Parts: sequence; C-alpha cells; structure tokens
Amino acid sequence: MAAMGGGGGKDGGGGMAAQAGRLGVVASVAFNLAALAFYLRRRYFGGDDAAAARKKAEAEVAPSSGKPPVTKDSIINLDHGDPMMYEAFWRGGAGERATIVIPGWQTMSYFSDVGSLCWFLEPGLEREVRRLHRLVGNAVADGYHVLVGTGSTQLFQAALYALSPPGPSAPMNVVSPAPYYSSYPAVTDFLKSGLYRWAGDAKMFDGDTYVELVCSPSNPDGGIREAVLKSGDGVAVHDLAYYWPQYTPITSAAAHDIMLFTVSKCTGHAGTRLGWALVKDRAVAQKMSKFIELNTIGVSKDSQLRAAKILKAITDGYDRAAGAAAAGDDDDDSSGRLFHFARRKMVSRWAKLRAAVAASGIFTLPDELPGHCTFANETVSAYPPFAWLRCGKEGVDDLEGYLRERKIISRGGGKFGADGRVVRISMLDTDEAFAIFVDRLAAMN
Amino acid sequence: MAAMGGGGGKDGGGGMAAQAGRLGVVASVAFNLAALAFYLRRRYFGGDDAAAARKKAEAEVAPSSGKPPVTKDSIINLDHGDPMMYEAFWRGGAGERATIVIPGWQTMSYFSDVGSLCWFLEPGLEREVRRLHRLVGNAVADGYHVLVGTGSTQLFQAALYALSPPGPSAPMNVVSPAPYYSSYPAVTDFLKSGLYRWAGDAKMFDGDTYVELVCSPSNPDGGIREAVLKSGDGVAVHDLAYYWPQYTPITSAAAHDIMLFTVSKCTGHAGTRLGWALVKDRAVAQKMSKFIELNTIGVSKDSQLRAAKILKAITDGYDRAAGAAAAGDDDDDSSGRLFHFARRKMVSRWAKLRAAVAASGIFTLPDELPGHCTFANETVSAYPPFAWLRCGKEGVDDLEGYLRERKIISRGGGKFGADGRVVRISMLDTDEAFAIFVDRLAAMN
Repeated sequence: MAAMGGGGGKDGGGGMAAQAGRLGVVASVAFNLAALAFYLRRRYFGGDDAAAARKKAEAEVAPSSGKPPVTKDSIINLDHGDPMMYEAFWRGGAGERATIVIPGWQTMSYFSDVGSLCWFLEPGLEREVRRLHRLVGNAVADGYHVLVGTGSTQLFQAALYALSPPGPSAPMNVVSPAPYYSSYPAVTDFLKSGLYRWAGDAKMFDGDTYVELVCSPSNPDGGIREAVLKSGDGVAVHDLAYYWPQYTPITSAAAHDIMLFTVSKCTGHAGTRLGWALVKDRAVAQKMSKFIELNTIGVSKDSQLRAAKILKAITDGYDRAAGAAAAGDDDDDSSGRLFHFARRKMVSRWAKLRAAVAASGIFTLPDELPGHCTFANETVSAYPPFAWLRCGKEGVDDLEGYLRERKIISRGGGKFGADGRVVRISMLDTDEAFAIFVDRLAAMN
Repeated sequence: MAAMGGGGGKDGGGGMAAQAGRLGVVASVAFNLAALAFYLRRRYFGGDDAAAARKKAEAEVAPSSGKPPVTKDSIINLDHGDPMMYEAFWRGGAGERATIVIPGWQTMSYFSDVGSLCWFLEPGLEREVRRLHRLVGNAVADGYHVLVGTGSTQLFQAALYALSPPGPSAPMNVVSPAPYYSSYPAVTDFLKSGLYRWAGDAKMFDGDTYVELVCSPSNPDGGIREAVLKSGDGVAVHDLAYYWPQYTPITSAAAHDIMLFTVSKCTGHAGTRLGWALVKDRAVAQKMSKFIELNTIGVSKDSQLRAAKILKAITDGYDRAAGAAAAGDDDDDSSGRLFHFARRKMVSRWAKLRAAVAASGIFTLPDELPGHCTFANETVSAYPPFAWLRCGKEGVDDLEGYLRERKIISRGGGKFGADGRVVRISMLDTDEAFAIFVDRLAAMN
C-alpha cells in the first residue's frame, strides 16, 4: 500500500514528473515483490518489521510517542494515570487487528445518525460498546441509551448539566465521599457555573439537593463504593472508569441511572479521548447530548471509529479464544486477551510494590480486597490502577514533597480531600518507569 | 495490507485454526499476486476499485455516511453548514493521499509533547498548520502559539475562559455585531458561567469590559468585519473559520491577538472536530490550554493526526502543481488543488442561486464583494459559505417558517440578532441537495 501510495503520489503532472512516475511504477512493482518476500518471511519466521515499516511510511505524519523514555536517574512522573502499560499488548498480534484505515473522504459530516438521540454517535461504536459489556458483564447496557463523549471527563460535565434543575434556582451541590478523584472539584468549578458547584466530601454534606459522584472502584484508593447519600432529591452519577476485570473482581452487572466509562483505563488509549455513558432516562440522555453539542458539536468520528475497532479487537480476541477452547484446543491464545494481559501485569506490579513497601518499612498500602469475579469465574483480589500510599515516618507530613525530592512525582492527598501523609501513584506507566519507582521506594527508610 | 491482516488475524489458536491459518497463507499469497495485478491494471487503466475495496475490508467497523441521500421530494436541510460539498474532492486522487493508517499501539499516551505549552498538541499537526498558513497567506503564524481544540467551538470557550478577569468580579461581557453567529449566545450562556455572559449586539454595547467576537468573513452574511469597539479594556477574538480563498479574496495576512480556525470549513472534515488557534500572548495561550485540559484533557490524537494528513495533502497538492508549472508543464493537476476545486464549486453555486433568486423575484441577497486576492493573484469576488437570503414578499414575516412549509430547512434571522424576513442557508451541502434547493427557490413567487 505504501508503494502504491508513494508511486501514485507522483504522477500529478507530465514531463519530468511523468517520467519520475514511470520509474515509480517499476520501483513500486519491485517493492511489492520485495514486500511479498518479507511477508512470507514474516509468516514463517515471525518478524513483522516489514509490515511495521510499510505502515509507518504510509502514515507519513510522524505521530508523537508520549513522555520521553526514562533512565536510572530520571524523574519518574507517576502523577497522571497515563496508561502506557498497555502499549506492549497492542504492539502484539492484537494491535495489528486493531489497526484502522481512514480514507480522506470518510465521515466528513457532522452527523452520524440524524434520527438518533445522540446524533453524533457512530453506530459501529455503539455496537461494540454493547458487545463488550455483554462479554465482561460489568454493566447492563440493554435498555440504556449509549452516549459518546470526548473522554469521560466531558460526559461527567454533561451529566452535571443534565441533572441541574432548570430555572433560576441556586447552583446544585456536587459531592463525593473523600478521598475523591482530584479532578472533580476543579472540573466542577472552573467556569463558576450558576448551575452547579462543588460542595466537597459527601460524608460531611447534609443538604437535600445534590449530585453524588460515586467512583467505584475508587480513584484514588481502589475501594468499592456505593452512594453514601440516599435522602432528599439527590441523584448519583456512577464513574465506572475502573470497573474492569484487570483491576477488580466483577461481582455483578452494574445497573445505575448514569454510568460513565472510558477507553483510557479500559484499553489504555488515553490519547484517543473517548468515553461513553450508559443512561437510563431518555430526557437526561437528551440533555447530556445537548451539552456535548454545545460544548464541542459532537465527538471526533476518527476517535470513535478507532475506539470501535479497538473494542472489537478485544471482544474478537475472547471470541476466538472461546472458539479454540470449544474445539478442544487448550493452547489458549493469551496474546489476544486484553484483560488477561492487563491482570497479569497488575498482579506482578502489585507484588513488586508490596515487596518494596515491606523492604522499606515506612509505608503502608490499603489491604487486598478479594471477591468472586463473574468474568474470571474465580475468586480474585483487586489490583487497583493507583497505589494509595501512606507514610508513617515521623516528620513526613508532605509525602508528595518527600517523594519529589527523591525524583518521584506523585499526587498529594490534599487534592483528594485527604491528608498530606498519603499520595496517589499511577500503577499504569511503562515497565521501565515502574521498575525504577519500586527500586527507589524499597531503598527509602 | 488487507491480505496480510486478514491472514494474520486467523492464526490465533492451534488445531483447526492453525490449518485455516496455513490455508490463509496460500490464499494471502494468491491475494497479493492478484492485488499486484490489480495494481498494475490501476496504474495503466486508471481504476482504483481494488485499492478501495482492500481499504474498506481493512477498516471493518462500518463508518456512518452522514445525512441520508435526498430525492426530489425530500425535506432539504440547509440549517447546519454541513460541508458535504467537499466529499467529491477527497474521493479523488487527493483523498488517496490523505488516507491515514493508525496502528493499535500508536499515540496511547495523554501527552504529545510534555515540555510544550500545549502539551496535547501533536507536533506533526502544528507543522502542517504553519505550512498551510504560509501557503495561503491568510494569517501570520510566525511568532504565534498554535493551540488545538475539539473544533473551534471549544477554542472559542477557551478564549472566553482565558480572557475573563480573575477574582470575584462581575462576569465579562461577550458581544458581537449583529447579525452574529447564532451559536455565540448559546455557547456563551449555557453553563451560566460567573466568568462571562452574552451581552448581545456589539453595536449597541457601551460598557468598558468586554470581549468582542469578530467573525470575518461573517457567519451568517459573508461580510468582511473589523472590531467595532475600540475603547476601554476590551479585547477581540477573531473567528476566521471562513477566511480561506474559496470563500473570499485573501487581502492580507491577518495578525490579530487570537485567531480561530477549523478544518470543518477549510477542508470539509466537520466530523473530525478539529480546530486550531493562533495566539500571540503566552499567558493567554497557557490559560486557553488549561481550559482544554479541564474540559476534555486534551484533544483526540486520532483527529489531530488525520487533520495533519489532510492539511499536508492540500499543501503537497499545491507544491506539486508549482513543481509541474516550474518544469514547464501547463497541464496543471487541478484535481489536487483543494482551494481551486472549492472556489469553482462556490462560483457555480452562487451563479445558480442568483439565477434562482432572479427567476423568483421575491428574494434578495447581499451584493458581491470583489477584492484582490493575494493567493489567487487576481481580483475575485467573495462567495460566502452561507446565503443570507431576504424575502420582500408581503406577509412573509417568518421566512424560516415559509421555507419550512416548502420543505427547506433554514435558520431564521432572529437567531442571529436580525429580523424574521431573513434566513441563513448553507451553500456547502451535497450537489443533489443544492440543486433541489435552487429549483424550489426559483419556483417561489
């Protein structure tokens, strides 16, 4: 394809350009034959350099590669939950199957489905979202409206907009039990909206009109949460970004009024900025859709098509493994099973982290929470995407600062409504960064 | 590539799957040889069906195709500026060159360039934005910060956020001379922000603290605008979505403090939701970037990479044509020159519209505005992306309703701060929809 595109790109004019074009044909044919040879070699010897090189040539506009690689003396930034751990999975066979090709003329319209409540939602994405929830069993999607957002952050704001009372009443109170996700206060308040305002720790709140944000498993501490407020005119928004089997046992299919998900923490594609919501009430779904229309006139079709392809690759991977098992083949294709890959990573990283904490002696971590996982069909522990690390050493009242001096960037407890002796640390960065982190942690005392 | 992906996708398990895999190799080799034959045929006979079919098979998740096709009796919806006119261009040779391939493992991080002011901006997109402005000469980019947004709508909100005074002062007034873009009031006010509020027609405003939105050429009426307010602490945001040579003569390179652009109206890729801003002041650029971080944690990398490839295809097309001209080849490759394609379309559509208006006798349109275009290097008329159509017929005080009864959906003047005897009509829809629209218009009297 690269050879075709490259040769074809040069025959625009005549004269010298046409001559170059004819040379290009010969070169292209040669390239195709060479590619065929490479391909056969790849099939029998397992290398995929040729395919990778061709794809790279085809993409032309060089993509970014995220944060720079770390070395032994680097500052290790584990502040954000940048899910680079997943890259290794997608560089394998599953990644090839998740490759997307978008021709120049495709999905140019603002509209995906004019007649639909969420008119900017790609039908292919909705299909794959429903299919994935059926596979995993983490949420009920039947009977729910599917909405798409530019990450679940946009859908969270859409929910606040939709749930605020109309008319000139006082702003609605937005609460969440501490420790709560550090972005909730900032995102709620940055525009000083007259519709809603951050009102802090749900456990300290005693009003009647509120939205409670329930993040479960909880960012930052991994705990399983239920709404703590159950009275008055309050409603709950369930942020289920981490309710996937690599992080926690799937104990039942969630069926709340508004449930938010994101590919960032499910598949690792944070750069795609793609979230979805399952919403029970039609009027609420319509208002949420209206928010996204006013805020960004819909959601990038390119990111929707890519997310659909990625979710499809995951579900297809499990279907293939199930097919092979049914055929009596016990050599299961683990390279195609995302949640298995990610869980193995999480188990290994948490073992290393607990060993480092034990070696150090000045830190503590939340206890492991076991449960029966309906997806894995066994009792498994939770392995949260963040470590909620507490320090008992005398004099360390600002653990974020203490770690920063030791070249580890974390997020201090104060931002989550907790104290300064605790920090949140991402467990999802690259293998290299994680290894340096645990080595440094083990040496602190 | 399809053959490789297709064969490779089936060898996940062993047993029957492996046998199928081996058959797949043979089939793939055969397919590659067949593809080679097709390719040679395409080079010599011009067909590109084979390549298209292969790409389609590769994409797998079926993309949406926008609004359904129209027939002679359809309701014709010209309410939105859905830029479907451009699809024909991208289905041609230029479209092949704008095809993007994104492997599953690519751009997974939140970050594009950690050290950059706009840390989520793909460097490849910034490069192509600057290159395009150099080609067209419509704006000065050197010395400006480039920011990316989920469409220019998000950047408009980012600008309001960045320009609002800090602290507990009264909301900043947001104004624009009527007729103004109908989304400005709604997008400014939908969250009832305490930072800014819509204050209406700039020509009626006499306060000191304000942001003036200057849309030039103007949506809805195509007029060239300058800031009407020049006193007090006011600042201007220039919405230059339509300052491209297909719509208006490029008379000079704009060099305002904040300039907003979008691919939707430049290249026709509305579904990609990608805009950019050129911002002079570093502190303002930083606050705008902060808005996008809080609102959506950056902008889809997929849409950025696609936009970069599309802008690259445009500039490359002109470079190629210039190269051919320099080589003395006067058979210019017009299929590769986007602005030439779009201008021809606009000239033809405006001629048809003016003929229909003349045939009807009950409508008027703004006068044609000629000017010397530095890009075309000749004096040309403006051909705005919207028709600002006024009706003089007695009794027609609600032109939007009058047209709706005749199955034409337009946007009434009231939404733009104007009267009900005028409507805005998109000139950018498909050829089919436009043809039915002018036929119906000509018959009204």
